[in-house]
Amino acid sequence: MSILVVGSVAFDNIATPSGRAENVLGGAATYFALAASYFTSVRVVAVVGDDFTAGHEYVMTKRGIDTRGIERATGKTFRWGGHYTDNLNEAKTDFTELNVFEQFQPKIPKEYLDTEFLFLANIHPTLQTSVRQEMNGVRMTGGDTMNYWINKTPRELAEMLRIVNVLLINDTETKMIAHESNLPRAAQKVLAMGPQALVIKHGEYGATIFFRQGAFGIGHHPFRAPSLPIEEVRDPTGAGDSFAGGFMGYIASQGEVNREVLKRALFYGGVMGSFAVERFGTERLQSLDRDEIDARFQVFRELTHLE
Amino acid sequence: MSILVVGSVAFDNIATPSGRAENVLGGAATYFALAASYFTSVRVVAVVGDDFTAGHEYVMTKRGIDTRGIERATGKTFRWGGHYTDNLNEAKTDFTELNVFEQFQPKIPKEYLDTEFLFLANIHPTLQTSVRQEMNGVRMTGGDTMNYWINKTPRELAEMLRIVNVLLINDTETKMIAHESNLPRAAQKVLAMGPQALVIKHGEYGATIFFRQGAFGIGHHPFRAPSLPIEEVRDPTGAGDSFAGGFMGYIASQGEVNREVLKRALFYGGVMGSFAVERFGTERLQSLDRDEIDARFQVFRELTHLE
Repeated sequence: MSILVVGSVAFDNIATPSGRAENVLGGAATYFALAASYFTSVRVVAVVGDDFTAGHEYVMTKRGIDTRGIERATGKTFRWGGHYTDNLNEAKTDFTELNVFEQFQPKIPKEYLDTEFLFLANIHPTLQTSVRQEMNGVRMTGGDTMNYWINKTPRELAEMLRIVNVLLINDTETKMIAHESNLPRAAQKVLAMGPQALVIKHGEYGATIFFRQGAFGIGHHPFRAPSLPIEEVRDPTGAGDSFAGGFMGYIASQGEVNREVLKRALFYGGVMGSFAVERFGTERLQSLDRDEIDARFQVFRELTHLE
Repeated sequence: MSILVVGSVAFDNIATPSGRAENVLGGAATYFALAASYFTSVRVVAVVGDDFTAGHEYVMTKRGIDTRGIERATGKTFRWGGHYTDNLNEAKTDFTELNVFEQFQPKIPKEYLDTEFLFLANIHPTLQTSVRQEMNGVRMTGGDTMNYWINKTPRELAEMLRIVNVLLINDTETKMIAHESNLPRAAQKVLAMGPQALVIKHGEYGATIFFRQGAFGIGHHPFRAPSLPIEEVRDPTGAGDSFAGGFMGYIASQGEVNREVLKRALFYGGVMGSFAVERFGTERLQSLDRDEIDARFQVFRELTHLE
């Protein structure tokens, strides 16, 4: 079944201990869409400027991604510059130029209204909520957010939490939303605010999915997926969005949501994140095939599998 | 097969967000011995003072632990006081009174010389090395260390690394020894210094075992075990030593060292660590039975197990 992602398309300047790259295609929606495209058909709603060329669009369309929902506005595309020092878990922002993204009002093409799965990448929570309300036929909605919205728009975020089925955030964001320093307790508090499931991404330590009691009819025991020890993380940018793309894309490909599907989805999330960081920007996500992905899924499985 | 632990026995004052405890029996050797005692027969070499009573000794002997190697010296037992704030991963030391531990010279009783498995808890690396040299018949040696020795006695530590088969340390210690911020690369550097295997304890995120190429004839792919999301960590003191006790104790109980044994040992390490933190001091480790331990092992297994 198909999935729609609503979020940012950007051009990034990135510097890491492994090198640097300028004006590379990025943004949450781009990473998500590329990662999810190996599992299911993907549709994108985003906004870009005059500097977004046919070549940039082809990065997505050659992966079969439906780009009809990418609006062309007058001006420049969102630009972000950041660098990483030895702590690759944390990006330091050098600059943010919102450009056409500042006035982004997601417009859902009529042809997209039948999409069964929806991912609301990190944008203003009010926009996230209104997109969800427009998409009546959606079976499952995933969402992301960030510290900025947690601090600045807690009320709008609380509304958003009521309309997502699965929230995908990191440890720090979970603790911030819950005002609670113990992670499992913080997870329960976030679940009490709305989502049926909460995926907490632990960076190099993998991810945990927590369930609200009775959610999806599958009990409430959490489940963990490891991440792969990687000797050279070239560029961590987009790892979280690629994780979300693998996670949601796999679920959409299965059509039904049960415990085993969610467990495998968590592993596929880690797999796509691990590919993303091997090269700068979206380079690695453009050149994969499903066999490579499934081979790495087996490596992830072996990493924690007892006979 | 039996295992010998050489390390500290102490009385601890502990304060955590869940409460406080004073003069509770602790020390690395105590936590290790209690945790390992559920798997195999355990012998202890340590030093205590006049304040170590028959009641304290009975905590160990009622678990079947052989305490003949605990030397009685004139003076007071090692005392440590520490507290934890919201970040339960890091103890703040309030005081350290080494007392009789300051002059600790491990004396191995003759009856212990045939012990097959050895664990060198965190003491001066030169003492660790000399214990290993005395124990000719040992089949496998595990060891621990800490930032103090990494900084103050790097040469002595380097010698110790050549005599241990498995080193069990945390992320920060691994990066400090290797002078390398990428964890998998740091692990390879530490392995190049001597150990065949390196267990890195990630606290609430579980643990990873890295292997030197060809070690134990089992290839070099790392393996990860999760830790359990715990809503109330009452007292993290001794979690790492309890982990080591579960890990080494399980290996000793199996007699042979192969990949599957090491994998299960990593899970049992996590299991014993998870019990240790449920109560203050060694309380929980005193009152377990093997059924409870194996039930939790299954919970850990389910936590990452794909059908």
